[in-house]
Amino acid sequence: MEPKDAKVAIAGFTVWLTGLSGAGKSTIAQALASDLAARGRRVEVLDGDEVRRHLSQGLGYSKPDRDTNVRRIGYVANLLSRNGVAAIVAAIAPYREVRGEVRRAHEAPFVEVFLDCPLEELARRDAKGLYARALRGELPQFTGVSDPYEPPDHPEIEIRTDRVDVERSVRTILEWLERRGLVEPACGLA
Amino acid sequence: MEPKDAKVAIAGFTVWLTGLSGAGKSTIAQALASDLAARGRRVEVLDGDEVRRHLSQGLGYSKPDRDTNVRRIGYVANLLSRNGVAAIVAAIAPYREVRGEVRRAHEAPFVEVFLDCPLEELARRDAKGLYARALRGELPQFTGVSDPYEPPDHPEIEIRTDRVDVERSVRTILEWLERRGLVEPACGLA
Repeated sequence: MEPKDAKVAIAGFTVWLTGLSGAGKSTIAQALASDLAARGRRVEVLDGDEVRRHLSQGLGYSKPDRDTNVRRIGYVANLLSRNGVAAIVAAIAPYREVRGEVRRAHEAPFVEVFLDCPLEELARRDAKGLYARALRGELPQFTGVSDPYEPPDHPEIEIRTDRVDVERSVRTILEWLERRGLVEPACGLA
Repeated sequence: MEPKDAKVAIAGFTVWLTGLSGAGKSTIAQALASDLAARGRRVEVLDGDEVRRHLSQGLGYSKPDRDTNVRRIGYVANLLSRNGVAAIVAAIAPYREVRGEVRRAHEAPFVEVFLDCPLEELARRDAKGLYARALRGELPQFTGVSDPYEPPDHPEIEIRTDRVDVERSVRTILEWLERRGLVEPACGLA
């Protein structure tokens, strides 16, 4: 019997990576998911863009539409995490209130991770050229430039992704999860 | 260690109960869920009306809107079942093609259960008075009366719910799941 199947009553949780476009949400989500999967956990990454395609086609980027989209992701994350899955959400979720609503609706632990990166650095990286366009006024609802982003007041974890690389970011999250008993320490792993 | 936690690599699956309003979808879903939970399985019931509220507010009952709603339920059922959950869907899902699409998108076994009950019997029971209204022409998109229902061609299970009670319906489904190795026989249970 492998260790992953021998564990008793594995508790799920949701890690919600919030932050601006380009702050590292998807990359860190995937790296975290790989690490958790290697430890034998059931993992799902709910990536903002992909989930929007499946659950929110037709919705736009107004506040009500963004809120509805975030609520739907939260609903699915809750269904997964209350069934023992490590649900990792990578979604901007710009509004504090609806993030709080999703947190309160959660039956499993909800871990808000704020990936903080200054706009200047994001505009410098600008892998998709979106910040340049937004700063030229071409993207009317671009979070952080032409649309609001409300940083979390009390996130469980805060990471300055302009100073910390992906590997260390993942380690920070994993160590937090280990301290809370949500993930077993990876004693035997390399 | 309890049996439910000692099982190795528990495989999830989706049981999709399709059929007209009043055919017994929700009742059988709940009874099946109770039984599976008593056997230590992780179970989620995705009930059409509730899921619509969470995932499809704003959508109506046109064919495209119904199809979108069914696709969303299918997406969530797939996420759950591929993570070891017994996902039980109670949703009319009137169109054959989109049911087939959801089946093909599934990574875990997909078990289509057709709850068949003649319209005459549904109109006779008519717990919510909806058939009377629909038959008077007051409900323009009422499945089976003023809107299409395409019965499954090859459902895994077919139950005539005008002839078979809830308990026996659940037993029929459970025995099917046991034969396929998706559920362990409840040897020790009363």
